Parts: sequence; structure tokens; C-alpha cells
Amino acid sequence: MPAFEELRVFSGTAHAGLAQSICDYLGIPAGDVNVFKFANDNTFVQFRENIRERDVFLVQPFSYPVNDHIMQMLIMIDAAKRASAGRITAVIPYYAYGRTDKKDQPRVPITARLIADLLTTAGASRILTMDLHAGQIQGFFNIPVDELTALPLLARYVEDKELKNVVVVATDVGAAKRSRNMAARLDVPLAIIEKRRLGNNDRTESLNVIGDVEGKIAVMVEDEVDTGGTLINSVKTLEMYGVTEIYACCTHGVLSAGAAGRIAESSLKEIVVTDTLPIANGKLNPKITVLSVAPLLGEAIHRIHSGLSVGAMFEP
Amino acid sequence: MPAFEELRVFSGTAHAGLAQSICDYLGIPAGDVNVFKFANDNTFVQFRENIRERDVFLVQPFSYPVNDHIMQMLIMIDAAKRASAGRITAVIPYYAYGRTDKKDQPRVPITARLIADLLTTAGASRILTMDLHAGQIQGFFNIPVDELTALPLLARYVEDKELKNVVVVATDVGAAKRSRNMAARLDVPLAIIEKRRLGNNDRTESLNVIGDVEGKIAVMVEDEVDTGGTLINSVKTLEMYGVTEIYACCTHGVLSAGAAGRIAESSLKEIVVTDTLPIANGKLNPKITVLSVAPLLGEAIHRIHSGLSVGAMFEP
Amino acid sequence: MPAFEELRVFSGTAHAGLAQSICDYLGIPAGDVNVFKFANDNTFVQFRENIRERDVFLVQPFSYPVNDHIMQMLIMIDAAKRASAGRITAVIPYYAYGRTDKKDQPRVPITARLIADLLTTAGASRILTMDLHAGQIQGFFNIPVDELTALPLLARYVEDKELKNVVVVATDVGAAKRSRNMAARLDVPLAIIEKRRLGNNDRTESLNVIGDVEGKIAVMVEDEVDTGGTLINSVKTLEMYGVTEIYACCTHGVLSAGAAGRIAESSLKEIVVTDTLPIANGKLNPKITVLSVAPLLGEAIHRIHSGLSVGAMFEP
Amino acid sequence: MPAFEELRVFSGTAHAGLAQSICDYLGIPAGDVNVFKFANDNTFVQFRENIRERDVFLVQPFSYPVNDHIMQMLIMIDAAKRASAGRITAVIPYYAYGRTDKKDQPRVPITARLIADLLTTAGASRILTMDLHAGQIQGFFNIPVDELTALPLLARYVEDKELKNVVVVATDVGAAKRSRNMAARLDVPLAIIEKRRLGNNDRTESLNVIGDVEGKIAVMVEDEVDTGGTLINSVKTLEMYGVTEIYACCTHGVLSAGAAGRIAESSLKEIVVTDTLPIANGKLNPKITVLSVAPLLGEAIHRIHSGLSVGAMFEP
Amino acid sequence: MPAFEELRVFSGTAHAGLAQSICDYLGIPAGDVNVFKFANDNTFVQFRENIRERDVFLVQPFSYPVNDHIMQMLIMIDAAKRASAGRITAVIPYYAYGRTDKKDQPRVPITARLIADLLTTAGASRILTMDLHAGQIQGFFNIPVDELTALPLLARYVEDKELKNVVVVATDVGAAKRSRNMAARLDVPLAIIEKRRLGNNDRTESLNVIGDVEGKIAVMVEDEVDTGGTLINSVKTLEMYGVTEIYACCTHGVLSAGAAGRIAESSLKEIVVTDTLPIANGKLNPKITVLSVAPLLGEAIHRIHSGLSVGAMFEP
Amino acid sequence: MPAFEELRVFSGTAHAGLAQSICDYLGIPAGDVNVFKFANDNTFVQFRENIRERDVFLVQPFSYPVNDHIMQMLIMIDAAKRASAGRITAVIPYYAYGRTDKKDQPRVPITARLIADLLTTAGASRILTMDLHAGQIQGFFNIPVDELTALPLLARYVEDKELKNVVVVATDVGAAKRSRNMAARLDVPLAIIEKRRLGNNDRTESLNVIGDVEGKIAVMVEDEVDTGGTLINSVKTLEMYGVTEIYACCTHGVLSAGAAGRIAESSLKEIVVTDTLPIANGKLNPKITVLSVAPLLGEAIHRIHSGLSVGAMFEP
Repeated sequence: MPAFEELRVFSGTAHAGLAQSICDYLGIPAGDVNVFKFANDNTFVQFRENIRERDVFLVQPFSYPVNDHIMQMLIMIDAAKRASAGRITAVIPYYAYGRTDKKDQPRVPITARLIADLLTTAGASRILTMDLHAGQIQGFFNIPVDELTALPLLARYVEDKELKNVVVVATDVGAAKRSRNMAARLDVPLAIIEKRRLGNNDRTESLNVIGDVEGKIAVMVEDEVDTGGTLINSVKTLEMYGVTEIYACCTHGVLSAGAAGRIAESSLKEIVVTDTLPIANGKLNPKITVLSVAPLLGEAIHRIHSGLSVGAMFEP
Repeated sequence: MPAFEELRVFSGTAHAGLAQSICDYLGIPAGDVNVFKFANDNTFVQFRENIRERDVFLVQPFSYPVNDHIMQMLIMIDAAKRASAGRITAVIPYYAYGRTDKKDQPRVPITARLIADLLTTAGASRILTMDLHAGQIQGFFNIPVDELTALPLLARYVEDKELKNVVVVATDVGAAKRSRNMAARLDVPLAIIEKRRLGNNDRTESLNVIGDVEGKIAVMVEDEVDTGGTLINSVKTLEMYGVTEIYACCTHGVLSAGAAGRIAESSLKEIVVTDTLPIANGKLNPKITVLSVAPLLGEAIHRIHSGLSVGAMFEP
Repeated sequence: MPAFEELRVFSGTAHAGLAQSICDYLGIPAGDVNVFKFANDNTFVQFRENIRERDVFLVQPFSYPVNDHIMQMLIMIDAAKRASAGRITAVIPYYAYGRTDKKDQPRVPITARLIADLLTTAGASRILTMDLHAGQIQGFFNIPVDELTALPLLARYVEDKELKNVVVVATDVGAAKRSRNMAARLDVPLAIIEKRRLGNNDRTESLNVIGDVEGKIAVMVEDEVDTGGTLINSVKTLEMYGVTEIYACCTHGVLSAGAAGRIAESSLKEIVVTDTLPIANGKLNPKITVLSVAPLLGEAIHRIHSGLSVGAMFEP
Repeated sequence: MPAFEELRVFSGTAHAGLAQSICDYLGIPAGDVNVFKFANDNTFVQFRENIRERDVFLVQPFSYPVNDHIMQMLIMIDAAKRASAGRITAVIPYYAYGRTDKKDQPRVPITARLIADLLTTAGASRILTMDLHAGQIQGFFNIPVDELTALPLLARYVEDKELKNVVVVATDVGAAKRSRNMAARLDVPLAIIEKRRLGNNDRTESLNVIGDVEGKIAVMVEDEVDTGGTLINSVKTLEMYGVTEIYACCTHGVLSAGAAGRIAESSLKEIVVTDTLPIANGKLNPKITVLSVAPLLGEAIHRIHSGLSVGAMFEP
Repeated sequence: MPAFEELRVFSGTAHAGLAQSICDYLGIPAGDVNVFKFANDNTFVQFRENIRERDVFLVQPFSYPVNDHIMQMLIMIDAAKRASAGRITAVIPYYAYGRTDKKDQPRVPITARLIADLLTTAGASRILTMDLHAGQIQGFFNIPVDELTALPLLARYVEDKELKNVVVVATDVGAAKRSRNMAARLDVPLAIIEKRRLGNNDRTESLNVIGDVEGKIAVMVEDEVDTGGTLINSVKTLEMYGVTEIYACCTHGVLSAGAAGRIAESSLKEIVVTDTLPIANGKLNPKITVLSVAPLLGEAIHRIHSGLSVGAMFEP
Repeated sequence: MPAFEELRVFSGTAHAGLAQSICDYLGIPAGDVNVFKFANDNTFVQFRENIRERDVFLVQPFSYPVNDHIMQMLIMIDAAKRASAGRITAVIPYYAYGRTDKKDQPRVPITARLIADLLTTAGASRILTMDLHAGQIQGFFNIPVDELTALPLLARYVEDKELKNVVVVATDVGAAKRSRNMAARLDVPLAIIEKRRLGNNDRTESLNVIGDVEGKIAVMVEDEVDTGGTLINSVKTLEMYGVTEIYACCTHGVLSAGAAGRIAESSLKEIVVTDTLPIANGKLNPKITVLSVAPLLGEAIHRIHSGLSVGAMFEP
């Protein structure tokens, strides 16, 4: 028995395709909302159907242009709240600003917390998201957060390739846990690339590979691929260390600033991402494989609406 | 005696020129803050000087691109709060989203209130702004708001022209108060343009002029000029009603979407705006006069810092 | 399917008649609540029926004595909250303090915002009100507000008179929008009365009529009639300008301080108000017509309780 | 060294005399504020002097008419907050609604808590009050509360009479602590009057005196005298039990609903109250003695402003 | 019809036996939750069944070790909130820190209020508790509080003894109301023990009995028995005043620091407590009778879950 | 110029020695506060000196018994707030519950966030802490947090040993960043121990060393040493991999459950901790070196009080 009335899913302008796929999974029509900008660059929202007491899900990854998409989400939430929505779940497949999650220099913001507060202030009842940059970001919220992970999806894809002599490689010492989990899933060893500044010149870094990679197929795992710089540098380093073939798995395909081209030109064999972010057709190339998270998000929305366990989706 | 320690003024990227002029008025160097975007479109901020217990003023009009500039302000406030600033005043010469200040249709947001909540949530201690679209927006805040007005500045400019046989014309029935105040200041009559939808076709409007304008010089007053559409339509209507010359006074020169060109081509004689918003050189043309509000803002900042009355700035 | 359990409507002491009419419309008995003052002038409230998880509506216009009626509402809300009401809607047909909605002088309150905060602090889940002095007052709340309008009711009453050669007259430049909307509904022209201070003597005002009224029947529209001073002065002015007959339409009949007598003695032909406020029998005279908003409020309560659109009540 | 700038004391309309006495004690002129009602019964406030960063004390007992005086205080606080006062202390010599401090029946409010929340919501920084009905009301606030007591003042007055063979009598079992403290101060015995309902008829009560009072002079102690009903009934009972002379000490002289007359006609010898509440001249009679708390409040304000201990005022 | 989905009752480690008895009363299995400490003394909680949208009741008296049990409750609430529980009721049969409910000395905390805020901050939706030290503690919460009383249970037990010539004795002047209510229920007289400090030596107290007790059977009533010191001293005093037999009734059997032994050795005939707190077997002795409140709490939980009146449980 | 009045430092019962050392560094006497438990296990606090407007620092690591020490801190904060402290800084050298910082299993709490909320709710103005388990915990607060690090202190101690052929070893893949920073400071290589579950039996783990350690001196770095289990297992693994000598550096010496003995018996050469936590004499043994953080905390308190940069303490 649903705790709230009828389930409705609405999409901002960031990724209508994903929202439509979620609705298809759920077997419901997409919600009717009008989101646009006036000539003065002010975002405007109007829900074009009655949402009183409805169980409202607003789908919007914080993709480029990031601030616009965040503000759109906040304005949608405000409008839904004032329209007497029964419950408002912000569905944020990709949560931007995840890397600004601590003060590691003096006088900097913790924007990932700020965004959490903004969502709560606007009136969100709960959050549904995927593969946060750090799990602690859940704790930036005091409303319930359901964080899904695409790791099983990505691991299954790699397993289906039936590669031999694989090593999972973490591209950064500070974020090796995801790689460790992938290595455990694939039952293969782990290696880690360490970045170290050289001398007084802050700009030059040396990359060392800790662990044994020579003659192996490397699978790199990251939460997101942004400019691709880290991946490409890691590829070069791994090649120097004698790796034979290199794959990468990333939940979020940010692919900013020429990343797609850089990947195409690199000796990276394949990069697997998901559709938490929209990927412009111009950015796609044969090396980039995109898996859909719509079934994951759709199933989670169904379970949240119906009071069923979301955790059960990830039990072995 | 200042209630807080040393006064510091910092600027986001929206309008560094205005912030510099304010600092010049105050006789202090501009604060040192680094505001930029990473490749992934995430805004970042770092204060590059100690601001503990300082009386911090953050200057940022909500100009184009609006959402970016709002988010920048929020992130600057968060960083200042976490850096132990003594007091944080958000100086917002132009407050965007002012027109979305009520629910005049079902299921729309009240974004002007949302923005007020976001600023408060981020950690602003107080607000300094100018000519809000509606005075009630002050009440969207529960932190102190000082709202300055450029009306005396604009009125003085018009008076100095020593025009004869002037009528002030409000371009809209719903916002005629500002024009009434200008008419009172100039001691001239008032007329009002009424917009009315015709028949069933929602798109066609008729414009009537209520009041006597024939053979007169018209001065139109608005809080902001956006696309210029309302002004240009008003100009056409006033010409049909026999006006001889037309001026416009607007605090905020938003000038979006070809407004500058539209003004240049119109029979509007001159439009006077202020520099609450940056106006790109490409948009300037001989018909557009820009007055500076830096002395007004600078004086208000001085008074806020020193515990002096701000209201006294506008007493006769 | 109702989102909350059984619907219950309770009344403070301000206007039990209206609450009873609403209950009659809904076909439910009035809720049983005891509201009174102790000898020490302290207001007390006790709900005399179980209201756990009930969908509670508390009806109380902020009529004279205003502060008593506001405090009564707050105390009723507190008692309902502590009695575990499922949802508490404050039904405020007349929202007092609406004119204190901005700081137009130094060091004054924004009481309309304060009252909004008090209602929220006490524990109101939502607000149902009518014809706020300014639409922006909706934005003083962060809980959902449903604002109904009596304009169609008033317009229909005027239309049924089948008057000829009508002009709608706004009695103030700063609040002409309501008149514009009435003029559009009646499809007649609009005129506006402008108040202007004369010379240095602040007390003397001149009233000008902007627009053509000579030989016409004038219909004045205001949100409320208070002392009647503005209406009576407008009547005198309109007569000087050659108007033949004058009507007034006001949602809220505050009628304070001899207003009823002043109206009776004036050459105003008829004033139409609604029963958002109780009108003492002694104040009624043949020139005052009272229309009931009970069906409007009753229908809105039904729709809020049942999750139906309230906006749909006002669609053409 | 003062923590905040210049000290300013303002008064609502409830008890300007007390505020003036406090200012006299402090040697400062009374603050200039305008508090009045419009014709529509809406309270309005304007501070007529700059209060930016000032240390503002607002003096207002919650005397009759109670709700008006509470609302006035809230509106003064809101105005002071928006006028950028540095700190706002609500000085409430008499806190009404103190008896509604718990739910001792189903579905009643806890108004004493509600009022605390309203004061905090309006923007009070701290509270200065006297002899709360229950000490726990301090805990209804999360802002600092300084509660002064007039007990030493009242005890000293009684001691100066040099009465012999005195017994302090508590008029109610549920509130005997204040009497116990007075008895300890005077070093005399304590007796307690017990109220008990008789049979099924709820209205009839029997009053028993527990403890020895025959042939003694009784001194009754209460936080407030309201209608005087309890005192008068206690007087009758004590006389039946052979008391020779009866005095009463109450901090707050509410004196509602004919209390003064009832006291005059009774065999009560004398009642001592303070001026926490204004007492209309018409209510005074030779049996009522009024002591002033202005020096207590003035000293406390001085100490709060200067960061000195307030507790030290009551140390032996 | 329940307002929330399925009812689930979970227990912290403080008193699993009581929680089980409540579940037995309700005819449901106890909820499955894991509560334990890591080696580093950090408390941990995991709900081992899906609780989305469930109506969750968390049972935990604040018994010894008090801070551990409070923290456990807070952590259980946090976990339930983040697990998307529909409603969270903190069931606190014994609310510790109840005596720290006011500032009766300078610079002390009001911990009873602090605990209320902590529970609300953690995410409790409502509170179910029994016989608070002071009724005002209800007002420390802004979430609904249902306070049950064991007084009828205790009174019935005493009545069943059919004692003759009984007097109820309050052991403290400041808390005699509970005794008065018991005396009224039993229809017997009341006496009160007054504590008074002697001379300058703060440590020596004299105990006087106010009222007639000689030759009677005394029944003492307190909300809780802690060290038993007050009871034992009262017993000695009453014996000096010629009482023949002494019973005590206390809702909460804290029984700290050798209380049980002290009771066993005293001439107290019997002490009746309830099981709001767990009583270690080692503390039980033939003089201590324990009545169970599980049916009271179970019935209240049933009524809260079903939207039925809780107050009705205590109507005559 | 200090922003607040006189600086005062108070200590709870957790670690009075550290507080005294801090006061010695600052050259001020320790603040006078009384913190104890009543017989009923309720914690009580009284400040025994006036703290109005003072700049109050409360020193309390969250050491064993953890919940008692947290609750003590909360109660001290509440008492300081109600005593009108000007600013309250919670100095928490060791922040417990740091490992419960995310939901990595279904239906568990995020206690590190809960504690942050409790501190804020109680009334803390700011936090001063050291080496949080994860930097993101800073973002669990919305009040300013100054996080100091003992890494330079520990590194300097190791450097002074002038060891040759050193490798820094991270004991866990998920928390290798601290080790990477130490390795960079010492300019030596990094190795990482990977834990991997074996087969279906969850209890058996294999430990692999990633990176080259044979024949080297290993220095392990962790934020805290708890049971010592991870360290001891790491020592065994490193020995199997041919390490010659092993040191460990940990900021926080939790040393629970036999850790000290386990360390004494192991082949660990030396473990360096700091005095953020009190270490009982019984736990000390020749292998455990304790460095004091009092100068670090003292200097930070001085800088916070005086508005000087704290970040500057850690600049090269």
C-alpha cells in the first residue's frame, strides 16, 4: 500500500531522455512540467498538472551547465512544495560539486554540503542519487538519502568480456576503495597509481605504480571521468610499466573540455560509462560504451513509492 | 566605533569594476579572493587573505549568467562563513528573479523568496541591495535588508535637462508607483499605459494611454529595462498619442536579447540607467547613459560598518 | 482518496457564522472546540473531540480585535499540534497587517511577514486565505498557501446589474492592478485616481483623475474598505469630474471607525463586500450588500482535503 | 567594557512609567519609539532614532490587554531586528500565560511555550523577566533568560513590620515552594491550604488548613494576585481556623475583574505587590501597597549590558 | 484506519523485557534491531528489517547508565530517520534529567530541555512517556508528547489493601501535588513534610510534619525513588510523629547507590514501584513490589498508531 | 583587538591535564567549572565564575566513556549558553564516532553527523578539533570548524630518528591518503596493505602488500590506534614480506581493549601517539611514545580569540 498518493515523475531540462526511460520502466507517462528561461536569463517552472498530495519525483542530474541545472532543481522543488505536493524526491543521478567536500585548504567552501542545504531549504523531502564522490556526502543531508551504485552493472559488463590476467588499477591513492571493491568482485589483484609532486615546482608530478601490473590487462575504476586527464596520464604510466591493454569504468561520464577526443586518441581500449549524465552525440566515439541506469533508478523509485527495501536491490 | 573588526570588500566575477569603484570610494584596497570554474563547470572560491572576525562585504549583482552569479554568491558566503568571517553582508546591486515574487498562476515557484532563503541558508548576515522589483521582497528575508534607491540620482539627472512640459508615464498599471514618485519629485503630471488582451486571442494586446500626454515630453520610469520590449511598445503608443519626445529612466540595465539595438533603432531619445549591472561595451550606444551607484553603495557600506543610519542618506 | 483522515472544521470566536456556513456546504457538523478568556485576559483553547491524525481546518479571519484573533489562531494551532492533529490548515479569510508588507520608512516592522512566521512557528501546515493585500505575501510563507479571490463573485454581481457606460476607477496608483483586472472582466475602460502631496504641508493632498470618467458610471475596486476615507474622498473627486453614479466592490469589509455611517451619508450608490469578516448588524445599512464566500472556502477545503486542484476553481 | 555599543531602552505602551523609572536609574534618556494602532486595529511601530548595532532593551509587561501587549512586543522586536539592532533584550517584568505551562487536560495548548517561541521567532536575543509562574518556563526558551525575583524585596517589607507570631501560609498545595522560601527567610513556620473537590459536584470545594495557624498572624505568598478569589477564600478559611491578622505578598498585581474591590471589602489587612504591572489609580486602595522593581530591572540591564554577573545581585 | 503503515516496536538495550511485554500486549513480534558497542566504546545500531514508511516505536527508558541509554536512543532515531521510517515515536517510560528543569542557581544547564532538543534534532516525530518529574517538561518539546500516569495503577494497588485510618504524606513542599491527587483518589487527608536548613550550616536540615499524622498509616507518594534518602528520612520523621505503618508509592524505581538495601533495613512496610525502569534481580527484596506498565504503554501505542484518543484511557 | 571579551578555557572531566597544559601555554588560569554526576547517574555542570560575554573554550576529547563525555560537553555548552557566554568553542581534540560517517550498510546511522547536529543544537558557536577520521566530517557542521593536524609533529619525530631505507605503509586501501602525505613529507616510497575477504566465509581475510617493502624499515600511519588489531595484523604481514623494522604513528591513542598489551607483545618497534586522548598510566609501556598537542591547541585558541589566521600555523 503506497504511503502517498499517485506516483509522478517530472524532468528538468538536463536529461529528459533518462527521465523518459525511467517512466517507461515504471509504465507511467512522464509528468507534464514546463521549464524554461525568460529573455533575462531567469529560470521559470510551471507544473501543468495537479500534483496535490502526489508522490513527486524530480529527475535532474547536475550536468553542464551545472549551476543552471542545480538552480532549476531548486526552483522545481519550490514550485512543487507550494503546489502542495505530498512528498518531493530529488532524483540526482549525478551530484556535482562532490569533490568540494572538505576544507583541505584555508578559506575554501564545502560546496557539496552547501548544495545539500539548498536542496533541503527549497523543500526536498528526500534524495535519490548514484555513486557519490564520497559516501560521507550522504551525511551532508538530514533528509533520507538513497544512494545507488552502478558498480555491479559495470563489473558485470567487464566480466562478460572474459578477459584473462586482469589487474584493477586505482588511479589515485586517496580514492582506491572503489577499485578495491571492483577487484574483489572480479577476484583479481589490485594496483595503485601514486601521484607525487617533484621538488619545489608544484606543477611537475611523478606517477608511480604500486603493485604488479606488467604483462596484465588493466581495468581502471573511477566514480567519474571529467577532462580525462587523470585517465590519460594513468594510461601512459601503465604502458611504461608494461601493461598490455587498458579499460576504464566510470559511473559518471562528465567528459568535459575535450575529454572525448583525448580518449579517442589515447591507447585506452574502451571506457564504459553510464547515462547518469547526458552525453552529447558529438562526444560519443567507438571507444565509449554507455550503459543505462534507468532500470536501477526506476526500480528504486518504485520501491521508495511502495515502501519496499531499496537496500535489497544490492543484496547478493 | 565599528561593531566588527576591519572592513573588507570582495567581488565575485559578475562586476569587478563596480566593486573596485566602491573600494575607491571607501579608500581601501579590494579584497583578495579567487573565484573561478573548474573544467567540470564547478564554481570554486578561495579567500586569499585572513578574514577571521572581519566585517566582510561580498559584491555581486545577479547579472547574466544569472544562476552562475547567484551560485557564486552562495559559495562565497559559505566559504566566508567557514573561514570565520565576523559578519557577512551580501551586496546585491541587482536582485534577479524579482518578478517571480508571487503565485499568480497555479503551480509556479516564488523564486524571489527561494533566493532569499538560499542566501540565508548559505550564511549571509545581512543584505544590501537596490531598487527591488517590489518592496515586499524585503519581507522575504528575516535578516536585515538595506534597500537603496537610485530614484533621486535618476531624477536629478532628468531635472538637470530642464525639460519643459513633461509628463511621467508609467508603462504598466500594476507598477505605477515608481512613476508616481518620479512625477512627484519632478512636480509634473502622471499618465499610465494600460495593457489589455483583445478577444479570445491571448497574444494580441491593445495599449491605451490613461491621462493626458499629447504635445508633451514623456519620461518613462521602470525598475529595469530587460528586452526593451515594453519600452519600445510604449514609445510607439505614446507617439500615436502625440507625445513629442520620450526619455526613459531605469535603475537596472539588464538589456538582454537585442535590447540595445532595439533602443538604438527606436525613436526613444535617451535612456538613463545605472551601473548596478555591468553593461558590455558592445551594448553601449549614444542613446544609453550610465550613472554610477558606487558612491551610494560605498556610503551605505561605510554606514553599515560604522553603525550609522542608512535611512539618513535618503532624507530630504 | 484523502491523504489524511477525517476532515474537521473548527472556528475561533471571530466569525463562527462563516465557519458554520462552510460546514453546511461540506455537509459536516462544526467541530467542537472551546475558546474563551480567563479573568486575567489570557486566551484559552480546548478541543473537545479527538483530533488525532484528523485533517484539521481552523477558521478565523483576523478581524477586530485583531491581535486577540491572531493570538487565538496561534493558540488553537499549538493545541491542535500537541493533540497530534494530522494536518493543520489555518483558514484566514481576512489576513490583517497586509499593508505592513515592506519597509517604506526607516525602522518599521514588516508585520505581514512576522505574522506568517508566527503561524508557521505555532505549527500550521498550510494556509487558506482570500485576496491578500499584495500577492507577495504568499511568499512570506514557506508552507503552501492557497489564495482564493472574490473578484469573480464581485464582478458577476456588478454584471448582473447591467449598467451602461461604466468605467472602473482605481483609487490609488500603487494598487491599480485589481481594478485593471475588474475592468478587463467587465470589458470597460479604466481610470485611476492619483494622490499627490501639495507644497511643504504634508497633510494636504490633491486628487487627480487620470483617464476619462465624465458622464460615466464609476465602479471602484479595492481589496478592503477600512475607515472608508479613501472611498469617500474618491467619491467626492469623481463627482467633481462629472461621474453620474458610483459603486464600490471590496472583498473585505473592515468598516472600522464610523465607516458604515460615512458610507450611508455619502453619495456612493452601493458598496458590495463579502463576509470574509463578520459585519455587526449595527453596521449594516441599505447601501451595503454582503455576498458570502462560504461556498468558495468550503469548496477549497473539500479540494485541499481530497487532493483536487484548487486552481481549477478559477479557470474560465 | 561593553560587548555591544550604546545601551538604549524603549517602552511599548503597556507600562511607560516603569520604563522611565528604569531609564532614570540608568541615567539615560528613554528611547524614542512610536507605538500606536491604526483605525483598522493594526498595531504599528517605528523607532525614531538610529539603533544600528545598539544594545536595545524593549520593556513591556504582558498586562491587560494581554494579547495586544504581546503582539506589540513581537512587532517591536521585528522592527528592531530589521533596523539592525546589535542585540535585542525583551524585558518582560510580567510574563502572562504562565499558568498554561503544561497539558493537564487533553487537547489544550502550552501557551507559555508558544509565547517563548514567538519571541524567539520575532528575533529576541535574550529575555529579562521576573518571578515566572514556574521556573521551568526558563526552559521554554533556548535564548538566555535572566529571571529576577522580588521575594527579597517583599520579605524585607514584611520584616520591617516586626510582626510577632507569624506563620506563612501557602494557598495551594501545588505551589507551596515560594511560601516555604518566604517562611525560611522570615524564619517562621509554614502552613498550607488544601483544596479538595467534594462529592460528584465538581463545583464545591472544601478548604483545609494543613499545619498550625490558630492565634497567629498569617502571611500569604503568591506569584500573582489575579481576581483575588483564591486570596479571599483563603482569608475566610484562615479566619475560621483562628488566625488573628492576614497579610499577602504577591510580585504581580494583575488585579483583574473587581479584585481591588474584593480586597478592600475583605478582612485582609494589607496586600503588598510590585509595579511589574501598571496598576490603574482607580484600582489602588489603602490596603494595597506597591513596591517598585525599577531599581532591580535597571541594575540587571546595566549588568547585562556590561557583562557583569546578574546572579551576584541575589547573593547573600 | 491507521495513518501510517504497519506498526513496529524496537527496543534499545535498556529494558528489552518491557519492550517484549509491550509487543505481547499488541500481539506483534518484537522488531529486529542490533544495538551494541564497538571496542572503542562507540555505540552502533542497525535495523535488521525494512522499516520504510513503517510506524516505528523505539522503547528505551533513560536508566543507568543514563548517558549511554540516551545516546543509544538518539542513534536509533537517526538510523530510523535515514532508513525512511514513516513516523518515529520515542517511547521513554522514564525520562532522566527531569530534575534539571530550571536554573535555580547561576550558570547551570536546563538539561531536561537539552535532551528534548536532542531528541527532536535526531528526528523523533513524537514522544510517549510516563510521569515526568514536572508536567512543564512536556512544554520543552514542540513535537507531540503523550504523558501517561501510573497514579491510578498505584492507587488501585493501595486501595486493594483496604487499610484504615490512612494519611497521604508528601515528602517535599515543592512537589506535593502528586500526593494531593493520591489523597483525593483515596479520599483521605494529606500531610506534608517540610525540609528547612538550620542556622548557617547548610548541611543540617530539620524535617517538620505539617498536618496530622499521629496514630495513622502513612502512604508516601513520589514520582521516583532514587537513593531512597528522602524516603528513609521521611520514615524516621513520621515515626517520631507517631505514625503506625508506612507505605511508599513511586512510579520510577531508580534505586541507585544502595537504595534497595536502605529500604530493606528501614521500617518502611512496603514500597510499590513500576517497571518503567529495569530492576536488577539483586535489587529486589520482599519489601519492593513491582507493577507492570506494559499494558498502559501497549494500549497507548495502539491508540497512537490507530488515531484513537489517548486521553480517553484516563477518563473516569 | 579581540572580537569578544576575555578568553576563558574550561575542561570537562575527560582530560583535565591537557586543558591545564593549554592554559599554561596561554598563560591564563584554568576556568572554574564543576562537572560531576549525581547518585542517579545524571551529569551536572555549574560554572563557578561569571562568563557573560566571555570567549569560552570548552576542552573535552570524546574519550572513554565516550557517551558520557559527549553528553558532558553538550551539557557544558547548554549551561554556558544560558549563562550568556559571548561565544562558545567546543574544543574536541578527539572526535569519536568518526568512522560512522556514511551509510555503507542499509539502515545504519551516520552518527558523526548526528553528533555534529547535537553540538550545534546545544549551542556551540564553533569547533576546534584534530585529525578527523575523514575531512568530510567538517562538512557535517554548518558552524566554523578549525581542524588541526598532528602529522607535521609526528613526521618531525620520525625524521629526527634519521632512519635509512624507509617505506611508509598504509594499512588500508580505503584510507591511504594520510600515509601518502607522510611519505611525501619524508620523501620515501609508499606501500599499501590490501585486505580481501576469502571465499564465502566472511571472517577470513587475506592481507596483501601492494608495493615494495622487502628489506626496508616500515612506518605505518593511521589517524587512530583503537584495539591495535589492524596494526598487529599489519606487522605480521609486513614481517612475512621481509620488512626489517616497524614503526607506527597515530594521532589518537584510543588504545581500547588490551591494545597496549598487544603492542607490547608484538614486534612493533615503537608507536608514537599524541595526548589528544588521556592515556592511563597503566596503559603506557616503553614502546609507546606520547607527544603533546597542547602547544598546537593553545596556539589555535589564541589565534581564534584574536582573529588571527589558524591556517598560517600549517604553512611551510
